[in-house]
Amino acid sequence: MQTSHLSKLYRSSLGLLTDLYQLTMAYGYWKANMQEREAVFHLFYRKNPFQGDYAMNAGLALAIDYLKEFAFSPADLAYLSSLNGSNGEPLFEEEFLSYLGDMSFSCDIDAVPEGTIVFPHQPLVRVKGPIIQAQLIETALLNILNFSTLIATKAARIVQAAEGDSVLEFGLRRAQGIDGGLTASRSAFIGGCIGTSNVLAGQLFGIPVKGTHAHSWVMGFEDELDAFETYAKAMPHNCILLVDTYDTVEGVHKAIEVGLALKNRGYEMIGIRLDSGDLKALSIASRRLLDEAGLTQAKIVASNDLDEYKIAALKRAGAPIDIWGVGTRLVTASDQSALGGVYKLAAIQDEEGKWQYKIKQSEDAIKVSNPGLLQVVRAIDEDGFPIGDCMIDEWLENSGSEMISLSNQEEIILTTHNSQKLLVPIFRNGNLVYNLPTLDAIRTHSLAQQSLFAMIDLPKYPQGLELNLYQIKRQLLKDINLRTNGMVSSPN
Amino acid sequence: MQTSHLSKLYRSSLGLLTDLYQLTMAYGYWKANMQEREAVFHLFYRKNPFQGDYAMNAGLALAIDYLKEFAFSPADLAYLSSLNGSNGEPLFEEEFLSYLGDMSFSCDIDAVPEGTIVFPHQPLVRVKGPIIQAQLIETALLNILNFSTLIATKAARIVQAAEGDSVLEFGLRRAQGIDGGLTASRSAFIGGCIGTSNVLAGQLFGIPVKGTHAHSWVMGFEDELDAFETYAKAMPHNCILLVDTYDTVEGVHKAIEVGLALKNRGYEMIGIRLDSGDLKALSIASRRLLDEAGLTQAKIVASNDLDEYKIAALKRAGAPIDIWGVGTRLVTASDQSALGGVYKLAAIQDEEGKWQYKIKQSEDAIKVSNPGLLQVVRAIDEDGFPIGDCMIDEWLENSGSEMISLSNQEEIILTTHNSQKLLVPIFRNGNLVYNLPTLDAIRTHSLAQQSLFAMIDLPKYPQGLELNLYQIKRQLLKDINLRTNGMVSSPN
Repeated sequence: MQTSHLSKLYRSSLGLLTDLYQLTMAYGYWKANMQEREAVFHLFYRKNPFQGDYAMNAGLALAIDYLKEFAFSPADLAYLSSLNGSNGEPLFEEEFLSYLGDMSFSCDIDAVPEGTIVFPHQPLVRVKGPIIQAQLIETALLNILNFSTLIATKAARIVQAAEGDSVLEFGLRRAQGIDGGLTASRSAFIGGCIGTSNVLAGQLFGIPVKGTHAHSWVMGFEDELDAFETYAKAMPHNCILLVDTYDTVEGVHKAIEVGLALKNRGYEMIGIRLDSGDLKALSIASRRLLDEAGLTQAKIVASNDLDEYKIAALKRAGAPIDIWGVGTRLVTASDQSALGGVYKLAAIQDEEGKWQYKIKQSEDAIKVSNPGLLQVVRAIDEDGFPIGDCMIDEWLENSGSEMISLSNQEEIILTTHNSQKLLVPIFRNGNLVYNLPTLDAIRTHSLAQQSLFAMIDLPKYPQGLELNLYQIKRQLLKDINLRTNGMVSSPN
Repeated sequence: MQTSHLSKLYRSSLGLLTDLYQLTMAYGYWKANMQEREAVFHLFYRKNPFQGDYAMNAGLALAIDYLKEFAFSPADLAYLSSLNGSNGEPLFEEEFLSYLGDMSFSCDIDAVPEGTIVFPHQPLVRVKGPIIQAQLIETALLNILNFSTLIATKAARIVQAAEGDSVLEFGLRRAQGIDGGLTASRSAFIGGCIGTSNVLAGQLFGIPVKGTHAHSWVMGFEDELDAFETYAKAMPHNCILLVDTYDTVEGVHKAIEVGLALKNRGYEMIGIRLDSGDLKALSIASRRLLDEAGLTQAKIVASNDLDEYKIAALKRAGAPIDIWGVGTRLVTASDQSALGGVYKLAAIQDEEGKWQYKIKQSEDAIKVSNPGLLQVVRAIDEDGFPIGDCMIDEWLENSGSEMISLSNQEEIILTTHNSQKLLVPIFRNGNLVYNLPTLDAIRTHSLAQQSLFAMIDLPKYPQGLELNLYQIKRQLLKDINLRTNGMVSSPN
């Protein structure tokens, strides 16, 4: 079965891109005749990644692709039909599988547009619809949004560290699988990178692609100068020479020789690339040599396990690097390899169709979820700056979005000039109602958000629940504690 | 362009799954009429992941899938034709694109079978063929093998820590993209996991799928007992109850009530799952309660950010956990998110067709590559135990695989009873000549390798270059140092 993984994956329906327990729960709802009962789920994360102050929301367009195609094919149903329980009998009744096969996606989905800066506990996606459907799409939504948001956030941090210099994403060879590479390239672009080395990402997403040559090119020739000259002859209009295959300073001298020859032919050498050694010292030395030779326009590209911390340190040290090539640490988010987003039930209809609020209880306060049909209201001042984010329940008569109550803290009243609802309608009754922005527009929005929030003291930025919603949550927690007889979790 | 990423990806050719610099170098070779010159490249890693003593090789079947389909479609060529250089002129000549379109894969490829334990610097894949082809496939091979081997290694470490207990992979929701999840499920199974929650991985690869219900199931009911009873009624033959939605010990009591009722109906509750809190104390308390109720067969499943270290600590502490559910830390290899494998030129034909040895020089000894057409010979003693790994150059009259010379260390002579070549033929002249084992067979091989090497003192396991090869490498390093005038890389 494993012999044609890629071709099978690429032609497969994604109905089964889920955890088995979503299907066994779906079966349970169906057996209990609860499958059409409406529920509300929110997808959110609890802690900003990378010990940072925000996340850069991304992945919505990919989630929409998944949702548009969400269905169980005959092959999917045949597979499910082959699964057995512990007693060897089929796990699912055939009638249930027919139900899955006939199911037509009918949820309402609201989500935060890509490229928006978001904070912990804010719903990035809100799903309202038959509980069986809302449950079945959980895993794929988490998979897609967790990873995209993680990498877009990492990219934004790197782009901010580069202080206006260009950042290129070079990570495909170390990415976590093929889609790990592609989605990382897309998210890196949303975060503000100017391009990628990943040609397939260029083809699929329209991201600018960049690249010149590797060490192996230089090694393929008897002599480094010969390698540079041959490359420059073939690609005079795409010439960045990698100078560190043997001795870096010698390499720069040879690159200058080739750059000057190119100039005589009417071309401009774009620059040189440093991929090892002391990037500060080598960039300073290279800049001096390039300038002395009159190649003042030639850029210095640096790569080699870079991330926001190394870039910031090199900037502080005055390294004259113009373009930063970032790979592994960006595309795998090596210091935090997963966002940890969750998907929690916030309300469900009872047998009479009446909505019941739900929260996930936990001894750990950060893990207690919020109930209701949530919206995030971002309060804006007269100058257009965000002054606070307030979560409201759209079912409540809200006392006004200017009332923000932070859990365990005092109430805050925001004097707002304007306000913006972060969640916008994406699907209504299963139909796509959202006009997807282009990837360029998403990136522009992301860079504008980065500029805006760079001027705000984020650790002090007010965030919390609207007052009435806060009271409901407190009451629910009290009720749960009463129901479990005031017991706290203790094994003895 | 980004509006149908998934569907486009799934129908796309993978010709462009590469870094742009592979294509610009390919163009350079073509312009210099070097494209058909034969070259040898090796794919290897330099350092065992997770500060461990080995890597578990995986990903070959996926790489074969890629290579079997390797070609440039008309759409790929049209995309490449749209790319421009710095002066606005097309990056590639049309004649080159025709060459790519007509190119027929013709490399010889040898590789280490999946499920084999491997060590630093050993080629996992050896590519011999026209340099243009060998170069174009570099990025995809690295992407596929780096990730698969990383996760199979992580899984093997976790499986070893579990000391014979079952380990389940639950990571899809936090994986790095869709393929990140699928490939992780496959690699985790190779590493020794008994199953996955990922249903698509079950369908595509035939991996056993596992799962019952989530917290949201319990929250969807007024009462935890009602939730358990409804689930057990629907799925009496797949019943593991998650007991920690509210108070864990209370949850265990309710699960026992349901388990006993199931027994009366002729079913066996498989067990309970703990997903939070003090897993040691809670598993001890749960085991006692289950046993007291006569449910001695009921298993205890534990999950919640587990990895090899936490599992080992819980095992040491005597936690009576039977099944370990491992997610994020396995599928994203969170303590080391990339393997860092590389692909280095080891030989190239000159204009006369004569092979020239090549090594990548570096001031960092670990980064110096090995020349030749490499094979790894694993020496085996009379009892079938590996006693040392020796890299040989298949072009040399080898003085005998029993001569192992470790760089910077003394010579070692192995008295070998038997020996095994790790690299086996996969493609000859572009044709697949390898019979792919089933995934089950790969996993069996992996578990046998784990048992075998568990009995060996790995930090002392002899590894190195065969003596003649070692001399050639030394001479090449001397030549390079002479050529660069003995200069070391220094900017001042």
